[in-house]
Amino acid sequence: MKILRVRDLIAFALLCASTLAAGTSLAADPLPSWNDGAAKKSITEFVGKVTRPGSPDFVPAPERIAVFDNDGTLWTEQPLPVQLYFAIDRVKALAPQHPEWKTQEPFASILKGDLKNALAGGEHALVELVMATHAGMTTDEFETIVKDWLATAKHPKTGKPFTEMVYQPMLEVLAYLRANGFKTFIVSGGGIEFMRPWSEAVYGIPPEQVIGSSIVTKFEMRDGEPVLVRLPELNFNDDKAGKPVAIHQHIGRRPVMAFGNSNGDQQMLEYTQGGSGARFMLLVFHDDEQREYAYGPARGLRNVAVGAFTPELDEHARKDGWTVVSMKGDWKRVFPR
Amino acid sequence: MKILRVRDLIAFALLCASTLAAGTSLAADPLPSWNDGAAKKSITEFVGKVTRPGSPDFVPAPERIAVFDNDGTLWTEQPLPVQLYFAIDRVKALAPQHPEWKTQEPFASILKGDLKNALAGGEHALVELVMATHAGMTTDEFETIVKDWLATAKHPKTGKPFTEMVYQPMLEVLAYLRANGFKTFIVSGGGIEFMRPWSEAVYGIPPEQVIGSSIVTKFEMRDGEPVLVRLPELNFNDDKAGKPVAIHQHIGRRPVMAFGNSNGDQQMLEYTQGGSGARFMLLVFHDDEQREYAYGPARGLRNVAVGAFTPELDEHARKDGWTVVSMKGDWKRVFPR
Repeated sequence: MKILRVRDLIAFALLCASTLAAGTSLAADPLPSWNDGAAKKSITEFVGKVTRPGSPDFVPAPERIAVFDNDGTLWTEQPLPVQLYFAIDRVKALAPQHPEWKTQEPFASILKGDLKNALAGGEHALVELVMATHAGMTTDEFETIVKDWLATAKHPKTGKPFTEMVYQPMLEVLAYLRANGFKTFIVSGGGIEFMRPWSEAVYGIPPEQVIGSSIVTKFEMRDGEPVLVRLPELNFNDDKAGKPVAIHQHIGRRPVMAFGNSNGDQQMLEYTQGGSGARFMLLVFHDDEQREYAYGPARGLRNVAVGAFTPELDEHARKDGWTVVSMKGDWKRVFPR
Repeated sequence: MKILRVRDLIAFALLCASTLAAGTSLAADPLPSWNDGAAKKSITEFVGKVTRPGSPDFVPAPERIAVFDNDGTLWTEQPLPVQLYFAIDRVKALAPQHPEWKTQEPFASILKGDLKNALAGGEHALVELVMATHAGMTTDEFETIVKDWLATAKHPKTGKPFTEMVYQPMLEVLAYLRANGFKTFIVSGGGIEFMRPWSEAVYGIPPEQVIGSSIVTKFEMRDGEPVLVRLPELNFNDDKAGKPVAIHQHIGRRPVMAFGNSNGDQQMLEYTQGGSGARFMLLVFHDDEQREYAYGPARGLRNVAVGAFTPELDEHARKDGWTVVSMKGDWKRVFPR
């Protein structure tokens, strides 16, 4: 009978273990904010087949690279990309030191609150704006400026902090992929140093897995302290055909999965698809005017300056089997709260 | 008595566990190829104090970044850096397609076996040589060329494959740091795409943690296949003041530990030291003519074109408490076999 006790203990332990395991697998939908449907299924089926040992599509863990665009894919980019609000607020903060901005575009229009006119200067105006607000300080100083701004800045429509304007369903995809041995990377047209100060806290993506556009930095000794100074000169434009180049430069492997939402992501998805073996490409389509925004000319929605879901992109998706996510139909909720 | 059996089992299990634990900590010197001494002690003491919870110098795991130069720090760079042998062999392989090389320098001298004359052209000759041998193919093709070359190429003095000319004590440091939650990165003046094809197998460092010099690549569709083509144009020179810039660009955090051997690593070590909190800087000094090579003017050894351990570097080390490793005195063995 004493021997039975030991056996009982073992049996009880085994029972507990199997019950717990069954409970876990039943309860834990890794993507609870996704409606059941083709988009959700395409993700879980793909992850299943590349991670199951013995599967013909198995991908060894070190090669499980997933890349994500940021603006419009992980967080909102409407009515303007977040980084533009940052630049505008920096112009206002720096204006006292720049009396010449009162008459100099695009600064004059920004200071008058006329954004439309400020951006009428196109790419040239944007570059002026970025260089005046993103350069001239050390990298450590810039990090502090970004963090301080994010702590108080609010989205113009919702009044929420921008870091709460991230897509809950995509946060779940990030966590789900990491739980399945993937390394998750951001590959964004936005500024690499604008994202790094918060990407780890918000997305669980550490700075060394953030790739973006950059300006030139220069190593200097300042009062005996080694610093990197940000210069007003473009180093790399991480958009369109620049994205595969940056992926190769930073990661050195072709991704297995790629997530985007605009024509700026097309080449990144093409490059991903061009690898041998199973690959997964996904586009977020913004068709949810109620809960977020609706834009993209491909499916009859109005065009916008950023994040264009173009007819060419739509054709790619149909022809090449890329998953297209309808925010309206595929997502139970859009934001974490 | 039956109850005793259970107690005995438990006691026996506990005894086993504690014996094993004690045995492990006694038996497992993480750096068995290092002689006991100041250099070895500086490494283990530093790792201890930044990883011990509650220590005033504790560094959270995500911030444990360690950077390593490659040539002369992780593998041999004498009598010439390995990548130069690669370039020379490529010139020989490509010569039939380039009849003009018979009279054009530096190719003519290389084809005649006169290396000294080939390199007399200095940096210009080197750039010519690199562009002619490293550009003009896709990134996938270049990876194959590097792998194929490494599979047969031999070190001119030892006759060993170059991937066996790596320093066993440094392999142990890499593994020891990773076991203590560090992410290990290569930050080399050598070509990033020359190192990535073998860094994971040889050093346990995956491609996304390899940083180096690079040439420009361009995204293209070739016969419907998305490829990156290598162009004969320098993208980034990852040496000297370029190293902190590249560390910031790729990693986005200041390293906690930095390992180098030459004046090309000075700024990387300075930048590391400039961070707040505990930092560790180490230089490998090549003073072992018997087992490897002896060079570096700082301590009276002959100068060489590469890997100069300059007087300035030596002064830095003395003044700032950088660890200097004497290969002769600090290393029990140099190569894995």
